[in-house]
Amino acid sequence: MKTMGETASPWADMYSVRGRRIKSSAIRELLKVTEQPNFVSFAGGFPAPELFPVKEVAEVTQKILAENGEQALQYSATEGYRPLREWAAEEMRKVGVPAQVENVIITTGSQQALDLLGRVLIDKDDPVAVESPTYLAALQAWRGYGARFLQIPSDSEGLSVDGLQEGLKEKPKMLYAIPNFQNPSGATLSLKRREQLVQWCRENRVCAIEDDPYRVICFDDRPLPRLIELECAQREEDTYTGQMVYLTTFSKVLAPGLRVGVVVTHPELISKLVQAKQASDLHTPTLNQMICYEMAKTGFLNQQARKVSTVYKERMELMYSEVKRIFPEGTKVSRPSGGMFLWVTLPEGMDADDLWKKALNRKVAFVPGAPFFPDNPKSNTLRLNFSNSNLDTIREGMRRIEEALHS
Amino acid sequence: MKTMGETASPWADMYSVRGRRIKSSAIRELLKVTEQPNFVSFAGGFPAPELFPVKEVAEVTQKILAENGEQALQYSATEGYRPLREWAAEEMRKVGVPAQVENVIITTGSQQALDLLGRVLIDKDDPVAVESPTYLAALQAWRGYGARFLQIPSDSEGLSVDGLQEGLKEKPKMLYAIPNFQNPSGATLSLKRREQLVQWCRENRVCAIEDDPYRVICFDDRPLPRLIELECAQREEDTYTGQMVYLTTFSKVLAPGLRVGVVVTHPELISKLVQAKQASDLHTPTLNQMICYEMAKTGFLNQQARKVSTVYKERMELMYSEVKRIFPEGTKVSRPSGGMFLWVTLPEGMDADDLWKKALNRKVAFVPGAPFFPDNPKSNTLRLNFSNSNLDTIREGMRRIEEALHS
Repeated sequence: MKTMGETASPWADMYSVRGRRIKSSAIRELLKVTEQPNFVSFAGGFPAPELFPVKEVAEVTQKILAENGEQALQYSATEGYRPLREWAAEEMRKVGVPAQVENVIITTGSQQALDLLGRVLIDKDDPVAVESPTYLAALQAWRGYGARFLQIPSDSEGLSVDGLQEGLKEKPKMLYAIPNFQNPSGATLSLKRREQLVQWCRENRVCAIEDDPYRVICFDDRPLPRLIELECAQREEDTYTGQMVYLTTFSKVLAPGLRVGVVVTHPELISKLVQAKQASDLHTPTLNQMICYEMAKTGFLNQQARKVSTVYKERMELMYSEVKRIFPEGTKVSRPSGGMFLWVTLPEGMDADDLWKKALNRKVAFVPGAPFFPDNPKSNTLRLNFSNSNLDTIREGMRRIEEALHS
Repeated sequence: MKTMGETASPWADMYSVRGRRIKSSAIRELLKVTEQPNFVSFAGGFPAPELFPVKEVAEVTQKILAENGEQALQYSATEGYRPLREWAAEEMRKVGVPAQVENVIITTGSQQALDLLGRVLIDKDDPVAVESPTYLAALQAWRGYGARFLQIPSDSEGLSVDGLQEGLKEKPKMLYAIPNFQNPSGATLSLKRREQLVQWCRENRVCAIEDDPYRVICFDDRPLPRLIELECAQREEDTYTGQMVYLTTFSKVLAPGLRVGVVVTHPELISKLVQAKQASDLHTPTLNQMICYEMAKTGFLNQQARKVSTVYKERMELMYSEVKRIFPEGTKVSRPSGGMFLWVTLPEGMDADDLWKKALNRKVAFVPGAPFFPDNPKSNTLRLNFSNSNLDTIREGMRRIEEALHS
C-alpha cells in the first residue's frame, strides 16, 4: 500500500474484502493514453457525439423546466418516473410481453442494473454462466460480489446452447447474455438458438439476464425477437412473472451522459431491486428521466435510431474492409449486423498485446481481447470500435495499424 | 415468499444473503400514505420546490447544450467533471484544507457516497460508530454490508465525545457524524466537541465520515468549522492525506433531482471509491454535473443559500412555537440553528406511534423517531420537517396534530 509523504496512509488497512476485490477495468486504464492529441482511438465504446440530438434535447429540457420545473428538480420515486415506466411497459406489450408498470424499474444507466442485480442475487462463489468473451463491466461488477463465472462457448451465431447443455459442469445460478450485436464479439444469437436457450432456461429453472443495449442499432432487416418475447409466446398472464430480466438503455441512441437505463422483470425482483437502489442512489435524476420520456413518447427515438444505424453501418463496412485488407492471412473478423464493435481473431500464435503496444507507439488504440474472457483468455483477439470515428479517422487509424503490423 | 398466480415465483429462492438483508426504509413506507390529496406531510426531507432556481437552471442548461452539447451528453470520467472537482477542491482550500483535484470524487447524490464507502470499507460485523439517533439511509446502506453499529450518546450539543471515550466497548472501524443541524435531531456539534472529536480520531486512528448536507442552510451567524478544517489546522501538506471523509451535496440548496454529491478525502481512498463507482454506475450524469458547476462558479449558490435559509428559518420558528403551544407539558423540542428538521421528545411513557396513527387519520404525517436509532429506539420521539410546507400549511398541519393529541 502506497504511503503519502512520510506517514503511512490512514486508509492502508481499512478496505473491506469487497473493497480489495474491486479492480479498475483494464479498458479504463488503456483508455488513458488515448487522451493525447492526435490519437485515434478504436478502444472505447462511445457513440458518435456528432449524432447526438443536442437541439432536440435542449428543446424538451426547456419545455420540461417551463412546465414542470419544480417536479424535474425535486426528489422522485426510487422506482423511476412513472410515465417513463409506463412507456417502457407499453413498448414491451407491443411485442407480446405482458409488462405492467410494476414490472419496470429505471436505473442510473444499465451499469447500475448490472450492479443491483449482482447485489441482490450473487453470493460469494455463486456460479454465473456468461458468454465467452463477454461484456467486461458485467464481469467487473459481479466479481465484486464474488461471482464465479462459468464460460459458455460462443461462435459467430452467439452462445452455443449445446455448449450449455454439455459443457457446464454445474447448474448456474443465473445466465447473462447479450443476444444482439454482442460486446465484444459482434455476434447475434440465431433465432433457433434463442428458442433453445429459452427452453433450456425454463427446463432448468435458470434465470437469465438479457442485456440488449444495441438492439436499435441494426444494419439489416429487423432485430430478432427478444428472449423475453419468446418466453412469453407460450404464456397467458396479465403481468410478466417469468424468469428473464430484460435490460435496455437510452445510452446508445439518445445520450449516454444522461445515465438512464430500464429493467423489465418479475415484480418481486423489481421490488428487491428498488430496495437495493434506494440504498444505492435514492433515485435516477428526475430531469434526465423526464428528458428520456419526452424523447421516447413522440417516436423521435426511432427516427434517431435509424439515423445512427445508417451512419454506423457505413463506418462498420469501411472498417471491416480495411481489416480484411491490412491484417495477415488467417485473421478472422466478424461482420456484425448491428452495434458498435468488430471482433478480430489474429492467426494462432500472434499476440494482440504485442500489436497493441506497437499501435500505441503510432497513436492508434484498440482493446486487446483478453480481459473480455472470464477465464482462459485468447491472447490473439482484439476489439475495434467503429461508432466513435468518422470515415477519415477510420482510414487514418487503420493506416497506422497497418504500419504497426508491418513493423 | 409471495407466489404470483398459480406458479411459485422463479425468484423465490434466488436472493443473495445481502439481497435478503436489504429492507425498504421505514420512512419510505410511511410516506406512501401521504400522497393522498389534502394530506399535510411533515414526514419527508424534501426541500421547498417553490424556491428551486428553475429559471436559472433552464438558462445554464441552454448555455451548456449550446456551447458544449456533445460533451454534456457523452460518457465522462468516473471521477467526475474536472472543473467541478477543481471548484470543490478550491472551496476546501479557502478554509485551509489542502485539497487538490485528486482529493475529490463526484457521486450520484450523497446517498451514493454512503453506499460506495460502505462497499469499500465495511465487512460483515465491522463496528461503525454512529450518533444515536442518526440518518436513517446511512444505517440502511451500511446494514446491507453487514455493519454493526456502536451508538454514541448525543444531546443538544451533538454527539458526546466523553460518551465515545467511555461508552464504546471496542474501537470502531470508522465513525459517522452529521455535525451541522443533524438529521434527525437538529443538533449542532459544539466547537469544543468538534476539537475533542478530531483529537480523539487522531489519537485512536479512527477514520471519520463527516456528512454535511445542511451546512449552508444556516439560520444564525456562520456555521462552525468543519471537522476536516480542524484536522488540517495543524498539518502542513499540499494534498489532503488525513483521515476524514467530507461529504457535501447540491441537493439541499440547488436541486435534489439532479443527484450530484461531492466527496473530499485522501487520494488513495478516492481511487478506491472511483473503482467502486465504475462498477456501480460508470459516472454521474455529465449534464447534471455541468449544471452544478455553472451554478456554483458564479457564486449564485451562495445567494440561493441565503434565500433558502431565510425562508426555512421563518418556517422553523413558526413550527417550533406551534410545537411549544400544542404539545403536552414535559415535551422537549430542539430549536435547530439550521437545516430542515425539528426533533420532538414526548413526555416519558407517551408513544409516538400512537400519535402518528391518530395523526394519519387526520391527514397529517410526521416520522416516529424509532427507526433513526440503530438500537434501543426511543419510542417517545418524532421528527418534523419544516422545509417543505409553507406557513399556512404548517399552521393547518399543527392544528391537525393538536386534534390528534386531544383525541
